[in-house]
Amino acid sequence: MKIDDNFFMKLAIDEAWKYQLLTYPNPAVGCVILKGNSEILSIEAHKEAGMPHAEINAIKEAYLKHENNSLLKTMKESHKIHKFIEKNHNGFFNDCTFYVTLEPCNHEGKTPSCAKLIAKIKPNKVVISIKDPNDLASGGIKTLEDAGIEVVTNVLKKEGLYLIEPFKQWNSNTFIFFKMAQTLNGSIDGKISNMMSQLYIHSLRDKIDLLMIGGNTVRTDKPKLDSRYVKGNNPDVLIYSKKKIFDQNIPLFKIPDRKVLISDDLFKLLDYKFVMVEGTYTLLNELRNKINYVLLVISPKVRKGLNSSLEELDLDFEIVHENYIGEEKIVFLKFK
Amino acid sequence: MKIDDNFFMKLAIDEAWKYQLLTYPNPAVGCVILKGNSEILSIEAHKEAGMPHAEINAIKEAYLKHENNSLLKTMKESHKIHKFIEKNHNGFFNDCTFYVTLEPCNHEGKTPSCAKLIAKIKPNKVVISIKDPNDLASGGIKTLEDAGIEVVTNVLKKEGLYLIEPFKQWNSNTFIFFKMAQTLNGSIDGKISNMMSQLYIHSLRDKIDLLMIGGNTVRTDKPKLDSRYVKGNNPDVLIYSKKKIFDQNIPLFKIPDRKVLISDDLFKLLDYKFVMVEGTYTLLNELRNKINYVLLVISPKVRKGLNSSLEELDLDFEIVHENYIGEEKIVFLKFK
Repeated sequence: MKIDDNFFMKLAIDEAWKYQLLTYPNPAVGCVILKGNSEILSIEAHKEAGMPHAEINAIKEAYLKHENNSLLKTMKESHKIHKFIEKNHNGFFNDCTFYVTLEPCNHEGKTPSCAKLIAKIKPNKVVISIKDPNDLASGGIKTLEDAGIEVVTNVLKKEGLYLIEPFKQWNSNTFIFFKMAQTLNGSIDGKISNMMSQLYIHSLRDKIDLLMIGGNTVRTDKPKLDSRYVKGNNPDVLIYSKKKIFDQNIPLFKIPDRKVLISDDLFKLLDYKFVMVEGTYTLLNELRNKINYVLLVISPKVRKGLNSSLEELDLDFEIVHENYIGEEKIVFLKFK
Repeated sequence: MKIDDNFFMKLAIDEAWKYQLLTYPNPAVGCVILKGNSEILSIEAHKEAGMPHAEINAIKEAYLKHENNSLLKTMKESHKIHKFIEKNHNGFFNDCTFYVTLEPCNHEGKTPSCAKLIAKIKPNKVVISIKDPNDLASGGIKTLEDAGIEVVTNVLKKEGLYLIEPFKQWNSNTFIFFKMAQTLNGSIDGKISNMMSQLYIHSLRDKIDLLMIGGNTVRTDKPKLDSRYVKGNNPDVLIYSKKKIFDQNIPLFKIPDRKVLISDDLFKLLDYKFVMVEGTYTLLNELRNKINYVLLVISPKVRKGLNSSLEELDLDFEIVHENYIGEEKIVFLKFK
């Protein structure tokens, strides 16, 4: 196997995907730091808005490899880590190579600018998958180059673009993803996912603005559609239905601080930034032009049960990324 | 992410899986070599019987990182690489760490002993996932320890055992795997896989002794069941059927140098070492106690078509490994 820029960038991209969608409204970003050309010091990612950026997590872990500083070890806040590193780096990063999936931010927001810190600690080279599409944060590459750091861009560009697709949508429009859980043979009947997958889905519900679901599913399943497993925020709900009458005792109506819309007007989705749709392949087929990503949770078992194989469907996907949650698979797909 | 023994062993295991089953009758083995504790020099695997073992491929690539020797670069044969390294290593490996998924062989077979070469070039440490279950080749750890090399074993032991499960079966019994191709929603109708997956399946047919297939499939699909895409060997065929009469014009009967058995006696499988079964979930369910691994090729699309969701099935798997072939997925499963 070739151990080159692509190899190390792939490690950064895979690490970032672990927190995909959970970083909203920030992009999912990963960072790998090498000592010299191939000694891995750290592989880190941005995990949640308000928490340190990927570069800061990676700088912290890399420094700890060099010196197991007990003060730095306990630091969680970005500006504290910045200050510590600025004061104590002592040239440690000068022979390092950084791999970042996205141009380091130049902008001082909730956290200080990553590009400016990197410019100060002056690694030998920074390899970047894609430039920042967000004007406010961009300028990072210029900051690095002005400091005399070699910058290489467009490494695994396609993978880098897939990674920040949600972020691009959040910035300009609405990011809409379709979530489905099934067995290996496509059955969607009954309880499919295990506890870990359900925790993950509740973590996503905590982040999204709006959850859309079909009217029939609401009538049949009588769902709650909350994020109780993670004690998170409960998204607004759009019941996609022509018929406007629903039994108000269905648990989803009982969740406080939630707006429930009943409508068959898909333009309502555009009032929100971050939308999850839960449903079957039939609904997915109907919405195919509106869905950015499909998130399929696959449980490795075969069961009797309903699936969509008897309907006339013709959907072609590209696998964008995949991962495990415990023993189950999550697969991110986009329409071809 | 923790960058520790598990991290590097996982790289070795993943590399080995790329050639899983294709190394028959040898085990799939991977090897990673680090300079010091974390600088990756090489990630290699054993690719096919008669070709160099994983350790030799990794030693060669690691040495080439150090010195781009044009003679070594062109060497393909194991004994030549052995000799070159023995003569020229000059202590280069003394501060290296080796990760090997399987205890290095001690036995001189088609290729010289890996353990003996490693003992001579004397790395600092050798980390091994699992000990060799094959008595003939074992003793490698002793050879290394006698040379004063630190040996660590049982790193990612479960993953290491899954990796050599086929090899263990080949040595003692028959390894039987079930191969199926389907769409995301479990449809198996019509042409599912693309050319790359078909090439892969033909590469497997070139290696196996026996291909078992259901009688109905033979009658309906009239298959050839050869390995023409890779110009390989054509396996014997067992048509699993009570009725013994088949149209002899079905192409599979026309393949030269092939035995075709028609039987419903599954004991016939045990006359062979390496068996692939092609069929549906229904056949898989019937054979569930006889199948070592399931190899599922999943095409990322949704289609109308037959699947097994209307039958009473209750199969639970563990995902053993997965990989891509081009845009399609291959998933190795074992019954829970």
